[in-house]
Amino acid sequence: MDGFTFSTPVRVRFADTDAQGIVHNSAYLVWYEIARVEYLREFAGGYQALREHGIEALVLESFCRYRVPTRFDDDLVVHCRCLGLRGARFRYEYAITRGDELVADGHTEHACVDARTMHPTRVPAWLAEAIAAAEAASPSA
Amino acid sequence: MDGFTFSTPVRVRFADTDAQGIVHNSAYLVWYEIARVEYLREFAGGYQALREHGIEALVLESFCRYRVPTRFDDDLVVHCRCLGLRGARFRYEYAITRGDELVADGHTEHACVDARTMHPTRVPAWLAEAIAAAEAASPSA
Amino acid sequence: MDGFTFSTPVRVRFADTDAQGIVHNSAYLVWYEIARVEYLREFAGGYQALREHGIEALVLESFCRYRVPTRFDDDLVVHCRCLGLRGARFRYEYAITRGDELVADGHTEHACVDARTMHPTRVPAWLAEAIAAAEAASPSA
Amino acid sequence: MDGFTFSTPVRVRFADTDAQGIVHNSAYLVWYEIARVEYLREFAGGYQALREHGIEALVLESFCRYRVPTRFDDDLVVHCRCLGLRGARFRYEYAITRGDELVADGHTEHACVDARTMHPTRVPAWLAEAIAAAEAASPSA
Repeated sequence: MDGFTFSTPVRVRFADTDAQGIVHNSAYLVWYEIARVEYLREFAGGYQALREHGIEALVLESFCRYRVPTRFDDDLVVHCRCLGLRGARFRYEYAITRGDELVADGHTEHACVDARTMHPTRVPAWLAEAIAAAEAASPSA
Repeated sequence: MDGFTFSTPVRVRFADTDAQGIVHNSAYLVWYEIARVEYLREFAGGYQALREHGIEALVLESFCRYRVPTRFDDDLVVHCRCLGLRGARFRYEYAITRGDELVADGHTEHACVDARTMHPTRVPAWLAEAIAAAEAASPSA
Repeated sequence: MDGFTFSTPVRVRFADTDAQGIVHNSAYLVWYEIARVEYLREFAGGYQALREHGIEALVLESFCRYRVPTRFDDDLVVHCRCLGLRGARFRYEYAITRGDELVADGHTEHACVDARTMHPTRVPAWLAEAIAAAEAASPSA
Repeated sequence: MDGFTFSTPVRVRFADTDAQGIVHNSAYLVWYEIARVEYLREFAGGYQALREHGIEALVLESFCRYRVPTRFDDDLVVHCRCLGLRGARFRYEYAITRGDELVADGHTEHACVDARTMHPTRVPAWLAEAIAAAEAASPSA
């Protein structure tokens, strides 16, 4: 997928479907999260590293456009990139594909917070640098 | 909540929380759905009536702004209104409150489809009229 | 339901269903949990009281017999009773009904643990007494 | 894991955790299902093959013993075997491991039903034979 730094596969679970016979809309937000977790594992020592620094990343906003229904056992790829890093905040953009077909896309907005107080705190320099390096190295950059 | 036609209570389940100690972002989309289902029960004979006419309402788009974290056992109210009905499509807007506090808001976009073919089909007249009547009767209209 | 101390209503959410058109088997464990939470609210100051004493109740075992499929929008009642309290451990038994029909039953086993260490710790006396009083007062006792 | 025919990896998702900081008990039933789906893919043409024959496999019973809490990002392996095939019914047994450690085990009971009527129907011969062959070929058999 052009313009995306990273991708990770997801196979649709039976539990992700609903009585319409297709995947429930809330499952896509879980897939987004899987992509963020794998992105951080690949480029920045994992989400657990963030938590060990006493930081949590909250979700401030989620958006998903469901273009084509997905179904049990579909093999999907979740593409993502991280951008807009400024102060405590950053943003992920996503595209979900099934073969060549774009089935969904969207974004999430995040803020780093202190895990104890839940107050916003700057994205740590090591993380900002790791993300900047990852995105700069992307073929699309 | 000013401007909303309908509201329904939701109590946060333990299963809705995650290891951040707050509610997982995907749970809000399930609460949206609960509000839509209760809205249709109140004003239009229930979602099951739609399904018995061979129609499903697909989610085309979801958006949620998470303003304040919510927690296990919180008593929330999901407010919603239905608008923008045109052809096969319609839109719900939401506000989620805890006491006087707005904790989240957002919208979903929908299309009616034929349950067999999954092709778009006009919102049935009886449903469009029921929604129009509900929204016209709203104190905020 | 004879022999049960407590019951709480649950309405089946669309998100609880799967592509078989019925409720997914994992949803029943969430309903069990709702019943435990409401039981503790009714008889023992709520689960939050336990957590504020630095105690968590872990699930050690779950069992569910799915007797009749349940469906979107079903109005269910989850009946439960707490028994077998000994040391750190206790047990809940459940019956889930739809009208007069028993649709599922089962049990869960639990242990109190220290929230920090996750090591087993005796059920606090105030909780043991509250449960004993609730169960003794049950019409079926 | 001795005595198990099949295994499949599962990585714990953040969405699987709850405010106790560990995985929610209901997630294990979803992992069981993933193992069944992969088992059928490996040995019997996939669960979809069953559905295309107009058959669904219902869950009649689930049991899980949670031996050690699991956490976000854990790499688990779900081991399973299928046995007790008789008429419409069959049974899966499971063990979930994290490295060398057994973290959970249990079973599910199932019945094949006609997808339209939801009435029990014999396990089709091709499926019974595929399962028998898989289990006979198991090193532990």
